[in-house]
Amino acid sequence: MKNTKATIHEIAAKLNITASTVSRALNNNPRISEETKKKVLKVAKQINYQPNHIASALRSGKSRLIGVIVPTANRNFFSSVIRGIEDLANNLNYKIIISQSYDEYDKEVQNIEALLNARVDGIIASFGKMTDNFDHFLKVIEKGIPLVLFDRTADVLNVSHVILDDYLGAYQAVEHLIKSGCRRIVHFTNIQRINIYTERKRGYEDALKANGIEVDPELIVYGSMQLEDGRRLTEELIEKGVDFDGIFSSADYAVMGALQVLKSHGIDVPGKVKLVGFGNEPFTSFTDPTITTVDQKSIAMGKITAETFFEILNSKETEPISKKTILKPELIIRDSSK
Amino acid sequence: MKNTKATIHEIAAKLNITASTVSRALNNNPRISEETKKKVLKVAKQINYQPNHIASALRSGKSRLIGVIVPTANRNFFSSVIRGIEDLANNLNYKIIISQSYDEYDKEVQNIEALLNARVDGIIASFGKMTDNFDHFLKVIEKGIPLVLFDRTADVLNVSHVILDDYLGAYQAVEHLIKSGCRRIVHFTNIQRINIYTERKRGYEDALKANGIEVDPELIVYGSMQLEDGRRLTEELIEKGVDFDGIFSSADYAVMGALQVLKSHGIDVPGKVKLVGFGNEPFTSFTDPTITTVDQKSIAMGKITAETFFEILNSKETEPISKKTILKPELIIRDSSK
Repeated sequence: MKNTKATIHEIAAKLNITASTVSRALNNNPRISEETKKKVLKVAKQINYQPNHIASALRSGKSRLIGVIVPTANRNFFSSVIRGIEDLANNLNYKIIISQSYDEYDKEVQNIEALLNARVDGIIASFGKMTDNFDHFLKVIEKGIPLVLFDRTADVLNVSHVILDDYLGAYQAVEHLIKSGCRRIVHFTNIQRINIYTERKRGYEDALKANGIEVDPELIVYGSMQLEDGRRLTEELIEKGVDFDGIFSSADYAVMGALQVLKSHGIDVPGKVKLVGFGNEPFTSFTDPTITTVDQKSIAMGKITAETFFEILNSKETEPISKKTILKPELIIRDSSK
Repeated sequence: MKNTKATIHEIAAKLNITASTVSRALNNNPRISEETKKKVLKVAKQINYQPNHIASALRSGKSRLIGVIVPTANRNFFSSVIRGIEDLANNLNYKIIISQSYDEYDKEVQNIEALLNARVDGIIASFGKMTDNFDHFLKVIEKGIPLVLFDRTADVLNVSHVILDDYLGAYQAVEHLIKSGCRRIVHFTNIQRINIYTERKRGYEDALKANGIEVDPELIVYGSMQLEDGRRLTEELIEKGVDFDGIFSSADYAVMGALQVLKSHGIDVPGKVKLVGFGNEPFTSFTDPTITTVDQKSIAMGKITAETFFEILNSKETEPISKKTILKPELIIRDSSK
């Protein structure tokens, strides 16, 4: 049975501290020591203390809700980042609510409105691919509501963010293909020029140049980076008779499409064409052959994004903090590039 | 450029109707004809009208937010249902916010609290696997807040729901395996006895009996239905020397694990063992061989769930409506059972 009657007074009695100290500890007040917070959380868990957030929100004017905007929660990358954010938030007695933009600008604008309407205490977001105007995020900043961006960001917004070193990830992926013997490496890139894709393209080009291989514009092809795009782009390369021995795709879904088409044409992977994707989606380890890809450190990104968020939320500074973190990606070598 | 200044007065002028009719149409008032609503929505889209939800919420006491609780948004089934709900909701000028339970009872209880805290106008939910106490949902009902459940429900809560005919889906899957020549069919089922898994198991058993095959308890094995469970259960069957020529798994992830292990043991699929999963997760069409599975009609489920929800929300009855819809699944035959 759930003990729904547990109160902060019980916690206080057990630890021989005041109820107000318990309340402050549960609300992550910076004046309370980490040691006390840990003890309070432990006892709260033991006696199954269920805080009354609504009453607490009414008292404090805080909702203890954080709004998270992502293009879609149905991608391993975004769901892992959300999990990382959620784990820390829940430990600090916050809940997160998610809103999806489906990469549509209008929906993203409405998401911001909906989350403000839900009285969130702050917003954590990753842009949609179509977002090239940032007024909706500026509105959040102007209202003094904490905002942290991850992965998909824009330098024009001087706001705290956590991103991956996409340039480095691409550079290492292409260098790996070159070391595996590839000379004619195709690059699948997104038709939308958001930061992550321009950085991956830059990494691709620089790795080629650094290894004495000229960048051939014929080998750089554009799509929306879905499975179908990968299929279409690969069919087109084969139809046109383009000579290539490797593909570095800026997304795993597109490289999966390439693998399907190459197999259906009887082109051996990795014998004739070697493949590297980006994202480490779970299916890349299911395919035959398994797909080499770049891991985006999504759990770490979620954790650091949440830490950055709470630092800003708890900051007593009048000037907002702007903190930028860049994570190192990891190349996961599997059978498609051996 | 976005036309952020568009007002209901412009829409009214263009259609030669009053602003109050426009406002009612946008708020899906039942007194306004469907024809007028369509015209208003069309013009609103043309002139890019952006409703001010916050001001509107303050006026009406409504947030125009619907809270959706799912175990995880990172499953194709749940994300498709959410998409179906969201499409209809957005057309009616509502936004949805998502909260994940990760199949944990305590998180689900907190999700309800968080969504009420965000002042949602109603809740749409699918239970976590651990949920066996429904007080948190009863609380929503007692507050008179519209609640609709989908997929994972409990009869003890007399609340509107939309579910799949899991029994029929399983029955058809097992009958298909029998017609393909299988006689010793393993069933992977969930260790948690929520409605969907008990119904699938019942369908498995009845299809065997109807075809004169005795149910062998040795062939019914239990796990959490993740990829790793499928791997472990298959390894155990092979180690124990259990004789089987087919597997009907109550989840796609587990059947994928089985496929990996069978391949690694050099057991031919579908030659020696035929496989059928449940869920039609996208990866089932990526694998080699592709996996036969049961499609759960997730888009239709989302659409009907949302329609049921708005019917309740707009109902003027004092007695709450309870409407139950059961959808027919579809067997998708692929290479793993040929």
